[in-house]
Amino acid sequence: MARTNDPEGLRQRLVDAAYVAFTTRGYHSSAIHDLKREAGVTGGALAHHFPTKKALGLAVIQDRVAEAVETTWIAPVRVATTTADGIQAVFATIVSELERKGAVSGCPLNNLALELSREDEAFQAAIEAIFLRWRTAIADKLRADLRAARIDDFDPDAMATLVVAAYSGAMAMAKASQSVVPLTVCAEQLTSILQNRTSQ
Amino acid sequence: MARTNDPEGLRQRLVDAAYVAFTTRGYHSSAIHDLKREAGVTGGALAHHFPTKKALGLAVIQDRVAEAVETTWIAPVRVATTTADGIQAVFATIVSELERKGAVSGCPLNNLALELSREDEAFQAAIEAIFLRWRTAIADKLRADLRAARIDDFDPDAMATLVVAAYSGAMAMAKASQSVVPLTVCAEQLTSILQNRTSQ
Repeated sequence: MARTNDPEGLRQRLVDAAYVAFTTRGYHSSAIHDLKREAGVTGGALAHHFPTKKALGLAVIQDRVAEAVETTWIAPVRVATTTADGIQAVFATIVSELERKGAVSGCPLNNLALELSREDEAFQAAIEAIFLRWRTAIADKLRADLRAARIDDFDPDAMATLVVAAYSGAMAMAKASQSVVPLTVCAEQLTSILQNRTSQ
Repeated sequence: MARTNDPEGLRQRLVDAAYVAFTTRGYHSSAIHDLKREAGVTGGALAHHFPTKKALGLAVIQDRVAEAVETTWIAPVRVATTTADGIQAVFATIVSELERKGAVSGCPLNNLALELSREDEAFQAAIEAIFLRWRTAIADKLRADLRAARIDDFDPDAMATLVVAAYSGAMAMAKASQSVVPLTVCAEQLTSILQNRTSQ
């Protein structure tokens, strides 16, 4: 392979290839020599940017997985009129993307959390930080709903934890059944629960 | 290693060792030669009972993982007075077990579902069958609550899906944070949601 004068582009290609591999095939199942081929980089370039597989794993979590949660969940919830609307919109987008792809590979964050959290403290801390930002964004939106008197008084942090848990679990069930049904069912249930608590 | 005259005991030891390995370290991360050592069996004995790693994986899912879901979830929900009581009892038992062990390795079913569902149809079917039995047991209990007029009219199958999803996701978050807090929070939220819908 030719030398490149674009080290940042090369680093991005590596992280992109590793993101796809780690969140679908799994971290341990992804061989470094396959990643080099998929990213089109030499072993020397890989070693320059990521001296260890763990360094590449951390970059995938801190850059790409964090970005995926931001784009998929945090931003749409923030701009929605209410939390219920935001949740409905997020699930609807995810369901239509899965239907377009014809396959459910699961939630990138949960796939990596289940594989890597227990084996390494740096992985665990990086994953936990993303879960925290995700829950906090939903809880903040619920607090805004409360202030606007759109919903009854309940614990926004606890409800945010339930929303994240229900989504993560529904995605695992969707992956197991290769069907979006668990996601559409949970979206309806969560929306209905939040709407039942809406002040009239 | 000596020959054994207890082929069934030997098979059990293999499935036991593989259950622990596959649901904690992961299926792909568990080397066959480690499993032989952990179970104390020869390669010949292993090949006799399980000609392939996949056959051993299927036995783990169909025997041990199904049994774990039956013991942990289905049986306690069935004998509880109401679904809400059952859910509370299940979460309380799991939380105290995790606190005793001092570590969260996650839900055996979800760990394997996320690792294996997409790569093999036999794994996927076996995992999906367990999710279905689990959801059905909770939905049946909710229907019994409805018949006894203890709860308002809502869709028992949809609510059962939400309960399973919330538990699975809470366990993934508990694993990521090595803390039982997501489980206790989701247990309170689910119980409160079911109780809010209780007829007075």
